[in-house]
This record gives sequence, C-alpha cells and structure tokens, in this order.
Amino acid sequence: MPNKKVLVAITARPSYSRIRSALEHLRDDPTVDLWVLCSGSALLDRYGRVSSMIRADGFNVVEELYTFVEGDDLVNMALTAANTVSHTAGVLRRLKPDMVVTIADRYETLGTAVAAAYLNIPLVHIQGGELTGNIDEKVRHAVSKLADLHLVSTASSGQRLVRMGENPQAVVCTGCPSIDIARESMAIDRAAVAAALEQVAAGDRNLHDEYIVVLTHPETDFHEESFEHMAMVLDVVERTGKQAIVFWPNVDAGSDGTSKAIRVFREGGRGHDWIFAKNLEGHLFLALLRGALCLVGNSSVGVRECSYLGIPVVNIGDRQQGRERSANVTDVPWDAAAIEASVAAQMVHGHYPSSELYGDGHAGALIAREIAQATPAAAKRFHDG
Amino acid sequence: MPNKKVLVAITARPSYSRIRSALEHLRDDPTVDLWVLCSGSALLDRYGRVSSMIRADGFNVVEELYTFVEGDDLVNMALTAANTVSHTAGVLRRLKPDMVVTIADRYETLGTAVAAAYLNIPLVHIQGGELTGNIDEKVRHAVSKLADLHLVSTASSGQRLVRMGENPQAVVCTGCPSIDIARESMAIDRAAVAAALEQVAAGDRNLHDEYIVVLTHPETDFHEESFEHMAMVLDVVERTGKQAIVFWPNVDAGSDGTSKAIRVFREGGRGHDWIFAKNLEGHLFLALLRGALCLVGNSSVGVRECSYLGIPVVNIGDRQQGRERSANVTDVPWDAAAIEASVAAQMVHGHYPSSELYGDGHAGALIAREIAQATPAAAKRFHDG
Amino acid sequence: MPNKKVLVAITARPSYSRIRSALEHLRDDPTVDLWVLCSGSALLDRYGRVSSMIRADGFNVVEELYTFVEGDDLVNMALTAANTVSHTAGVLRRLKPDMVVTIADRYETLGTAVAAAYLNIPLVHIQGGELTGNIDEKVRHAVSKLADLHLVSTASSGQRLVRMGENPQAVVCTGCPSIDIARESMAIDRAAVAAALEQVAAGDRNLHDEYIVVLTHPETDFHEESFEHMAMVLDVVERTGKQAIVFWPNVDAGSDGTSKAIRVFREGGRGHDWIFAKNLEGHLFLALLRGALCLVGNSSVGVRECSYLGIPVVNIGDRQQGRERSANVTDVPWDAAAIEASVAAQMVHGHYPSSELYGDGHAGALIAREIAQATPAAAKRFHDG
Amino acid sequence: MPNKKVLVAITARPSYSRIRSALEHLRDDPTVDLWVLCSGSALLDRYGRVSSMIRADGFNVVEELYTFVEGDDLVNMALTAANTVSHTAGVLRRLKPDMVVTIADRYETLGTAVAAAYLNIPLVHIQGGELTGNIDEKVRHAVSKLADLHLVSTASSGQRLVRMGENPQAVVCTGCPSIDIARESMAIDRAAVAAALEQVAAGDRNLHDEYIVVLTHPETDFHEESFEHMAMVLDVVERTGKQAIVFWPNVDAGSDGTSKAIRVFREGGRGHDWIFAKNLEGHLFLALLRGALCLVGNSSVGVRECSYLGIPVVNIGDRQQGRERSANVTDVPWDAAAIEASVAAQMVHGHYPSSELYGDGHAGALIAREIAQATPAAAKRFHDG
Repeated sequence: MPNKKVLVAITARPSYSRIRSALEHLRDDPTVDLWVLCSGSALLDRYGRVSSMIRADGFNVVEELYTFVEGDDLVNMALTAANTVSHTAGVLRRLKPDMVVTIADRYETLGTAVAAAYLNIPLVHIQGGELTGNIDEKVRHAVSKLADLHLVSTASSGQRLVRMGENPQAVVCTGCPSIDIARESMAIDRAAVAAALEQVAAGDRNLHDEYIVVLTHPETDFHEESFEHMAMVLDVVERTGKQAIVFWPNVDAGSDGTSKAIRVFREGGRGHDWIFAKNLEGHLFLALLRGALCLVGNSSVGVRECSYLGIPVVNIGDRQQGRERSANVTDVPWDAAAIEASVAAQMVHGHYPSSELYGDGHAGALIAREIAQATPAAAKRFHDG
Repeated sequence: MPNKKVLVAITARPSYSRIRSALEHLRDDPTVDLWVLCSGSALLDRYGRVSSMIRADGFNVVEELYTFVEGDDLVNMALTAANTVSHTAGVLRRLKPDMVVTIADRYETLGTAVAAAYLNIPLVHIQGGELTGNIDEKVRHAVSKLADLHLVSTASSGQRLVRMGENPQAVVCTGCPSIDIARESMAIDRAAVAAALEQVAAGDRNLHDEYIVVLTHPETDFHEESFEHMAMVLDVVERTGKQAIVFWPNVDAGSDGTSKAIRVFREGGRGHDWIFAKNLEGHLFLALLRGALCLVGNSSVGVRECSYLGIPVVNIGDRQQGRERSANVTDVPWDAAAIEASVAAQMVHGHYPSSELYGDGHAGALIAREIAQATPAAAKRFHDG
Repeated sequence: MPNKKVLVAITARPSYSRIRSALEHLRDDPTVDLWVLCSGSALLDRYGRVSSMIRADGFNVVEELYTFVEGDDLVNMALTAANTVSHTAGVLRRLKPDMVVTIADRYETLGTAVAAAYLNIPLVHIQGGELTGNIDEKVRHAVSKLADLHLVSTASSGQRLVRMGENPQAVVCTGCPSIDIARESMAIDRAAVAAALEQVAAGDRNLHDEYIVVLTHPETDFHEESFEHMAMVLDVVERTGKQAIVFWPNVDAGSDGTSKAIRVFREGGRGHDWIFAKNLEGHLFLALLRGALCLVGNSSVGVRECSYLGIPVVNIGDRQQGRERSANVTDVPWDAAAIEASVAAQMVHGHYPSSELYGDGHAGALIAREIAQATPAAAKRFHDG
Repeated sequence: MPNKKVLVAITARPSYSRIRSALEHLRDDPTVDLWVLCSGSALLDRYGRVSSMIRADGFNVVEELYTFVEGDDLVNMALTAANTVSHTAGVLRRLKPDMVVTIADRYETLGTAVAAAYLNIPLVHIQGGELTGNIDEKVRHAVSKLADLHLVSTASSGQRLVRMGENPQAVVCTGCPSIDIARESMAIDRAAVAAALEQVAAGDRNLHDEYIVVLTHPETDFHEESFEHMAMVLDVVERTGKQAIVFWPNVDAGSDGTSKAIRVFREGGRGHDWIFAKNLEGHLFLALLRGALCLVGNSSVGVRECSYLGIPVVNIGDRQQGRERSANVTDVPWDAAAIEASVAAQMVHGHYPSSELYGDGHAGALIAREIAQATPAAAKRFHDG
C-alpha cells in the first residue's frame, strides 16, 4: 500500500518548536511519507534559519520558498501572504500531497490554507478555535473555515469550532504540542541551559542564579508603538536589579521597532550583565524559563507552556487577549508602573502548580496518530448541529 | 466633514450586476466618496469587460488590476487569488479607504478580504452566511471571518453568521441586491429584450415566442467533466424542439471545457435558430428570463432572482447545493434522462408565484444606507453569544 | 561521469516547433540529461496546450508554470514576464541545471534569462542578434547581454553579437532550427496534410488544390489596430476567390483584436469554404505552406522557413522589419490595395528557388552538439574586440 | 503647454546620492513634472529609509513599492527583480509618465527597465556602458539595450554603447552625477563631518585626526565568502593602529555575511575607538572621505568620487574590475598581506591630484537639461553604424 503523503508547512520558529514532537512521530510512522515545506521567516538568518535546524533534525525538507517581503509596514504582511499562496500552490500542484498541515495563525498560515483549499487538498489545522483578539484571530478563524480536520489544544477551542459549523467528527482535542516540549524540558539541568545560552548569545556573560526572561513581540495593530513598548519593558526590568535574558522578536510588521529598542539599550551601554539571544532550541528555552524568576513580555509561551511549567508570567498588553489562561499569568497594560508592580509581585509569589489546561504533554503522539489515520475529504459541509 | 471613503471591489460580471443598485445609492449619497476597484475577470474582453461598463454607468473606477492567471488548472485560482491580495494591498495602502466592500464568494473575493484584513481596513461582506457546498462555501465563510460588517440576503444566513461568532450588531439582513434588479426588470417589455439580445449575439437570429434559457457554469471541484456536462445539457434542450438562448460561462477553472462544448455544438451546425450570447445587461437578462419557458443550468440566478420572478428552473448538479430555495426550483443530477423529464415537467407547470425569500427588491437602498452609516472597526472579537 | 543537466525553457508554440529537432538530438545524447520547463502560453488550451505535445513527443517536462496574465493591455506582458522570472527562479534554485537554454525574443524569454542570470547559471540563447524593430528586438538584445553562449541563425547575426561585445568564442552560427523542419517537411505528401488539417479544424471543409495561407500576429506596439489589420487581410484574400487556410494568432497583447476579426468574419457567414485552424504540428504546417499559392501575413515563417522552401510571401507591415530575407518575400504596408496587388503578383510568379540564408536544415544537430560540448561560465566579460 | 512628466525610479541609497543634484535641477524646471518612485531597499529601515529622506528633501514621491524579498540566497535577487517589474508596471500604467529614468545597474534597475519597455514608455538610463565584470555588468548592458536615451559618465562608456548598436544621437556624456556631490562636499569642514557622524553612529566615539574609512560590499557571485572577506579587512585595518570608520554594507545577496563579520568584530570587544555607521548623507560622506588617510574596500566610490577628490584607495577584489580608474586607486586581491602592504603604501603616499575622468562636477545640470529637452521614442532601432 502506498504511503500517505503528508506535507507540513513551517513558516516560523515558534511553529516548528510546537510541531516538532508530532513531526518525530510522523517521521517514524512507516505508513506516512513526511514532507516539510519551509517558507517565510523560517528561512531568514536573523531568526536563526529554522529551515536548517529542521534538516539537521533529520526531516525531509522538500522545498524552501523565499516569500518574506521586508519592510516595516502593514502591507508587507499582505505581500508575504500573497507570495505564500502563489509559491505554495505551485509546490502542491507538483508534489500532490494527500494532506497539508498548517499551524496556528500567522499570515503565512493563511497563505498555506488558501493554496491547499484551491488545490482541493485536505487541510489539517493545528491550534484552531482559540481567541486572541487581533488580526491573528481573524486569520485563525478564516483558516479554520478553510480546513478539513482540526486538531485543537483545549476543549473549549474545539467546542467553538463546532459552534462555527465544523463537523464534530473533524474536531479532535489533542492538547497543545508545545506542552510536550515543556514536559520534556523538565529533564534538562541548569548547566546544560547555561552552556547552550553561551553559544547563541554574543559576548561571554554567564547565566546568574536569579534572572528574568524578556520576550516581547510587537502588537500588530499598533506597530508604531513597538519601539516605546520594548524600551519601557527594558527600563522596568533594569530597575529590578536582576539579570535579564532578552530575546529578539519574531519577524512581523513592527518587529523593526522592537529590535531597535534592544539595540539602543545595548548600545547605550546598559544591561552590562544581561544576555541578548537570537534563538534557543525549544527544550532549552523552556528549561531556561523553568529556572526564571519570571517571564516578562507578551508571548503566547507565557500563557501556554508556562501554565504547564508553573512559571510566574507578567503578560503585557492585548496580544494574548482572549486566550485561556491559568493562575500563573498576571495581565497588565502597557504602563510602566503596572508592569513594575506586577513583576515585583510575581517574584515574591514564586512558581505555581502545574496546569493541564493546554494538555498533558503527549499532544505530539496524538496529533501524529490523528494525521496518520485521518482520511479527510477536501469537500466539507457546514455542520448545522 | 470629510466624506467617508468607500472602496468597492468588483471582480466579475455577476458581482457587478448584484451590487449596482447599491452603488447607485452610494454614488448619490453626498456623505460618501465611492471608489470602484476592478480586477480579475472584470477586465477581460471575453467576459464583456465589465470594467468599461462600470465607467460607462458613471462610477469612479479608481484602479484596474490585471490579476487573472489564465489556464485550465486548479492552481490558477490560487495564483489569481495571490495576485489579488498583492495588488489590492498596494492600492489600499495608497488610497487608504475607510471601508472596503467585497461581494459573495469568488476567489478574488477572498483576495480582497485578505488584503483589507492585513491593512487594518474595516471590511464589509455582502452575501455571507449562505450554504453552497464546495470551494465557494469554504471561501465565503473564510471571508466572513475576516469581515467586520455583514450585509446578508436571508434571515437564516444572518443567523448562521451569529452562530459562527459574528457580533449580532454587525449582521444586517438587507435582502439580496440581485432581487432589486429582478424587481426593476419587470418594467421591461419583450421588444426591448429582443432588441438587446440582437446586439450582443452573433448572427441575426430572432427571439421566438417560446424559448428556454441555458446558463451553466463548471462545477469547480470536478472541472474535467465540464465539457461533458455542457454537451449533455445542449443535447437535452435540443430535443425539446424549442429555441434556446445559451450564455457563455463565467471564467473559472473548468470554464474552458464548458465553452468548448458550446463551440463544438455550434460548429457542428446544430442549434441553427439558437442564440449564443456573451453578456447581457442585468435587467435585460432578467427580463429575458421572465419570458422564458424555463431556465436550465446551475446558476445561482435560478435559485435567487428566479424565486422572486417565479420562473421555472431546472437546477442541475451540486453547484447550488445548500442554498435556500423556493418552490420554483427542481433539482436534478447530471443525468440526461432526469434533466429531460424535469424540463418537460417545468414547461407544463409554467410560472410560479413570487417569493420574498431573498428580499423584496429594495436591498440596494438598504445596503447603501448601512454602509453610509456604519462605523465598523477592523479589530473585531469573537462573539461568544 | 555525471551527465550535464540542460534545462530548456519553452514558453510558446513557435519556440517548440523551432527547437524540437535540437531537443531530439539532446534527448538521444547519453551525456546529457534534458529537462523541459513549460510556461506562459505553452500551457494554454487556446494555443493547443503545447506542453502536452512535448510530453507526448517523449520529452521530460520537469515543471509546468502558469505565468500568463490574461488581458488585452500592455501591462500584461510585464506581469507575465515578472511571473516568469519569479517562478522560473524557484525552479532553477531547486533543480540546479548546469545550463539554461532560452529561445528567441518573447517576453517570457527575457523572464527566463533574468532568472538564470541572477542564479548564476550559464544561459544559452538561440536566435540572438537578429533585427526586427520593435519591443521584440529590445528584448532579444537584452537577452543576448544576459546570455553566455549564443547559437545564431545567420552569419550576420553572429557578427552583430560580437560587435555588441560578446566574445567571438561564445558565438556559433548553427543556422535556424526551423529550417530543419522545413527540410523534413518536404517528405510529407498532400494527402497527409489534408488529413491532418481536417483534424484540427472545425467543420468538414476539404483542402482545395489551390489555397492561400493566412497567418497574422498583432503588431505589439500598435495593438489597438489589430482588429482592423486582420479584417483588411481577410477582405483582400476573400476577393482572390481562392480558398484560404486561416490560423488563429499566437497569444500577445493585441491578439484579442486579431481573433475577434476572425470571429466576426466567420460569424458573418463569410469564407464558407475556408478552413480556420488553431494549431498544426510544425512539419505539417510547413508541408501545408509548401503547397500554398502564397502566404499572407506577418509571421516570421514567411521570412525564415519560406525562404528555404521557396514559397511566395506577402509580408505586411513592420513586424518582420530588419530581418534578413531572400527573394521570396514581398513587403507591403497595411494598405488593402498594396496587399491585393502583391498577392496577385506572387500568385503569378509562383515558387522561388531555395535559399540557405537561414541554414541548410541541419541546425538541430549543430545546436545539440554545441550545447552538449559547451562549458560556458556565467561570469562573462565584455569583449572589447 | 502641459509639462513633461518624468518618473525617476530610486531603489537604493547610492542611486539617490548620485541622482540628487539632477533631481534638484529637474524639480526647479517649470517645464517638468518630477515624480519619484521608491522601491526595494530604498524603503528599508536598516538602510536608512531613503524614501523618507527623499520626501524630506522636497521631492514628490508618488509611490512606495515594497518589493524586497529578504534572504541570503541568489534567488532573492530574481524574486525582487520580478516584484519590481510587476509593481512598477502597474504604477506606469496608472500614471503614464512621458519618460522613465533608471540609474546604474542594480537588479531593481533591470526591473524598472523591463516594466518601461513593455509599457512602451521611453527609458532614460544613467551610467550605462561601464565595465565591472560580474552580474552587475550583465544587468547594466541589458538595461542599455532596453533604454532609449543614455546619459553616460565617461567618454569611453558612450563609445561602447554606440558600438553595442545604440544610436550616437541617443548617447550623451554628462559625466557622473556623483562627482557633483564630490565637488560640493569640498565646502564642508571637518567639524561638520564629525558632528554628523556622531548623530548616525552608536556610542559616543569622537572622530580622530587620522582615520581610515572602510566600505565593503559582498561580491555577488561569491556571496558565501563575504563573511571572511570582511573579517580579513577588519583585521588588517586594526593592525594599522589607526581609527577606522566602518560602514554597514548595502543590501544584496551576501550582505548578511558582511554585516555578521562587523557584528562579530564589535561584539568581540575590538575596535573600541572605531565608529560604525549605517548611513551618512552623501556630501558628508565624501567630506569624511576627503579627510581620510585612505579608503579600504571595494565600493565604486573609491574609483569614481575618490578619483576627483584625489583620495588614496585600496580597492580589493573583482567588484570594480573593468571600471576606468585614475592613479589614486591601488588594486589588490582578497589577500591579507597584499591588502596590508597596499594600505601602508597609500598612507605613505598621501592624497593625489584631482582627475576629471568621471566629469567636472556639473553632471546634475547636464542630466537635467538632457531629460528636459529629450523627446525619445520607445521604438528604437539597432544602429548599424
């Protein structure tokens, strides 16, 4: 029997981190031919060239598509999405996979979904049904309406998709695959984290016993403010007197502002014992978080993986608005005083008990099993329920 | 007070026919600057170059975008959608309208919606929430999830959008604007129809007293069969002995097959008193339908406008599957015997009473009023109801 | 030793006709892996879907790229060229051929050349150095400046390239491969021609003993006049009283006008014994020409293949301006009286002696040998001579 | 009389620096409507967002096109060129300028030229006919063959274009406009230079009395070596013990490698009194050069402006190969010992007498006058001379 040909589209670092455990199961499944298509920021040096990591991890990268149109303007998201549609469509026509898998809610995700839909290839969407309250949410739900099988992270996300007209048979709650990495990361000790961090960071600064992790992405809808936001965060964290581990932002409209704030801070001679890192392998990043006093920023990691790991999180602004969260997260607006107070409170509180809101850490195996067994048709119907 | 700048994207002949009554109201509203953006098949000579008609009708066409990638392959829908995203995004960035209006469910519709969503410009979607059961339906619902204001044709479509998470405040049932044209067309007499038809059809064939109208579009998901489908329809209609008025299909993957069937039929010397037409102005087309024994094919006109006009319709295949319909429609599969029996029965039955399922013929005014008064924000939230 | 990987880009019917004899030699050369890339109008049904012919002829079509943006506007040439650059570049990056071969002077030719140049892949250009006097000539010379090996059709073309700074070592006069087909076509008898024509033409009209062939392309720089030009030609030919074999034009800005003139003529009930054909295999087309009273139009076939075959040609307008020609060609302007007089004179004169201006009919073998043996580098230098 | 509409396409920082003096003359000419189209790296923050500078300088920027596809791979030049063709063509169709002006030899230059050629708009090319020996040279000559009027920098460049078949009437030697800036820069004193430098450079390092300027671009054809090349240059200059002013490279395939070498050097704590600058206004940059001990790198500035200014230049590698040069330039290969010896010798020699090889510093006025007076037709002919 010929194998099922599954094409997984990876367009950014976080998507790969989340899906890797599922990819490993699929790769080891003898009934599946696993193909990885890399595009968008997954090919860019300034985000660690994830495409090369994927190859190095032993996956079959069948195509690399340069689709990322550079520039700090909203139009670039549309242009990049358009490139993703047009070049992905060509690849799908040539390779004729039995199924396309797309992850989460970035603009390239929508590009992949549009291409698969028009080519009549069944589409599997991972992490649909969640609420976040900005352009990402619009895109996520649009992708869901183009998708034929939904592998969701939480029970309530799945219920929302059914309400939106998706067939309950086509909605499976697997938990979030990012929790798998969180679970696995618990086996990594501090020395390994410190060693890894030295390799990806410039300079020769050592990881302290106590440190705060900073990870901030621009808020797409207010991209011009991204410079001031990041500058505010760096100021506040500096005043704690603790060492900070600061990560460069993922690529997006507005990320130039965030990056600039980091550069100005550094070039102003501040943060002399801080560590500035571009990319850290997923497990090591989570092991780093596990040892942190708290995480400050607006990444979904704070809501998702940190809920399982019980890490105190100061979540700023609207970027994670609507996402389900556990007790570990404190939400604050873009206000220096509020952020400062919340960081102080979280450092006092310390770690939280683990939550299984986003799964129990075995989502990868479940996702792989669903993909391997599924036989979705591209011609779906609204389920009137 | 500066006027509200409203950009309406028109990508195909039927979209323009439907929206024209609303456009006229918007054009005459002193608080609105109305801009029309034409792209896709609206610029193609073989579909009557609708763009030129729109100018001739006195509307302000601010840009023409050639986006249509030719070829009889599914990939071309994706490529055309990608072009629509990329070039429309550039126009929106330049012109900065306060609102973008997109119509129905074609692939260019999705391209317009994606461009507006990424540029943070509020999107108005007309004719969302309906069911049809193929790629168009996927696209229609995806557009709805990107849209910020929904002007729907039927009460049940609106209810479906609310169920899908759209805010009830942002869903307004205006009726379908195509019914406005149907209502207006009732003032046109037979002589005017016959005269108009002579001008758009090749040869000098006269319109008979009794005639059947044939309008068949390829079914996107099975485009290779489109040649055989159309050949079957022409055979069946020929056997009635009645004159047929045959319209060329709208442009789509598969339309080459439909067109070829018409050419082969004609070039084989058949249908010597038939009329083959490329395009007929909307009112005249509906007035032509009003005088017909029945309509044979799979156009949404049969379900929609003909319900108001009470015209007997033989609707073939799955293309209109899921659409709400009145008593005037008989559904049959792509089977020559079934089509033949149904055509015979509809000719015996004759006209039906008018239905207001799709509106009372004043949708244009309602749509224009909603657009003129609306102040949608691009940042919408899932409405958990 | 690994084989040399040669990718030949085919974008239109005439290019394939010309290059086929060379392709056959390359396919049969055990030191060469021959790959064919089809794009542009080579994929379109309305031009006979040359891509399928190429597969049926036993060549390895490694990719089909839909790049043709439809519409009767100059901008579409630029848009199609852009698509050719972008999608061809992706294919070259993936397949990494040792050499790319591009033919003649169409806009897709330039797209192929740009892609190869930026990817540092040596480019072979066939039929460079000729003069024609419109956008095609600009494109042809631009392609020559991007190319690394030039296989030219006439001695004077080669001299012109050297004058333009190309290294004399990189310029080889092979003759025009289209003459190979002309030579081979001399073995085909009239019955075979008549039979083939019946298959590609609509209706059941027989080939007469005496006939005129009409093949007219729009003149790109004056595309709006193409309708009137073609109407004029059809009028003049009709007045000879001879049967005409009329071919549909190749796809270009302006071709909609030419096609429309043919349709209007036909649908007006004229040319009742004429044959209207879309495409005829190259040898058969030339065999058809060989039996013709004369060729009327503006195709390069009249200047090139007909010079070898000795067929009387009435060449209209500027499209072939600058091309070297033999005694068989009479040039006339777009003037009905001039065309009519010239057609009459050519019918009186009859056939001409064969000329070897464009080669002796063995160019395919020479081209294949040069490609197989060449080791061009992509980094060329201006040759100051 | 309506004004002549002249559209000047600017795609990169150096192009603007060169053309600015001509733009000022054109802007002040009452018979000309001057439009500037910005695209490519002219819109990117990491290259100083030249587009905003152009607006601030009082020019009418009619459109900004995001065309730059990010990534360190040759394919990105082709993708960016394709975007330039497609989006520029749309702008030309909409605005219908009487003339398009394009500068030098970058890949976006070719994109502009292809768009203008297909839209039948006369193209003026500035700085054609020069020799440099890599992909830039191929592109430059291809652009020349698409151009209708050539404004060249040196007498021998003009002669070469005529030899290539350009009409001598359409070739005018204006000198290089970059020399205008060099001439004007002689009025700027050292204090102004030092002050300007402080504003664009990070940190608070002062300009020393003696300093070396480093400006290195990746060599496109060997982009993987760009990291090692730049590291070598930085090592050699460090050993002189002099202060260095190091400029970030212009954006190109390979520039990521060059930038990385600078970052590694800096982050390694070296060059503690060096100044690293992103962009300096043209006059100030040349005034900075005028005060330098020597210029080290491979920029065309060394060959061109420095010839007029008499600055000692160590020109490394093949990037300027073929360009005409004066006595001030010493050429060396990518070899640390050779570079070191040459830097030492140039520091001993000191400044050279001024040369007018590239003009006398009034090219801007000449270029503006030619553009204002020219009436080129898009339909040119090969000049057989």
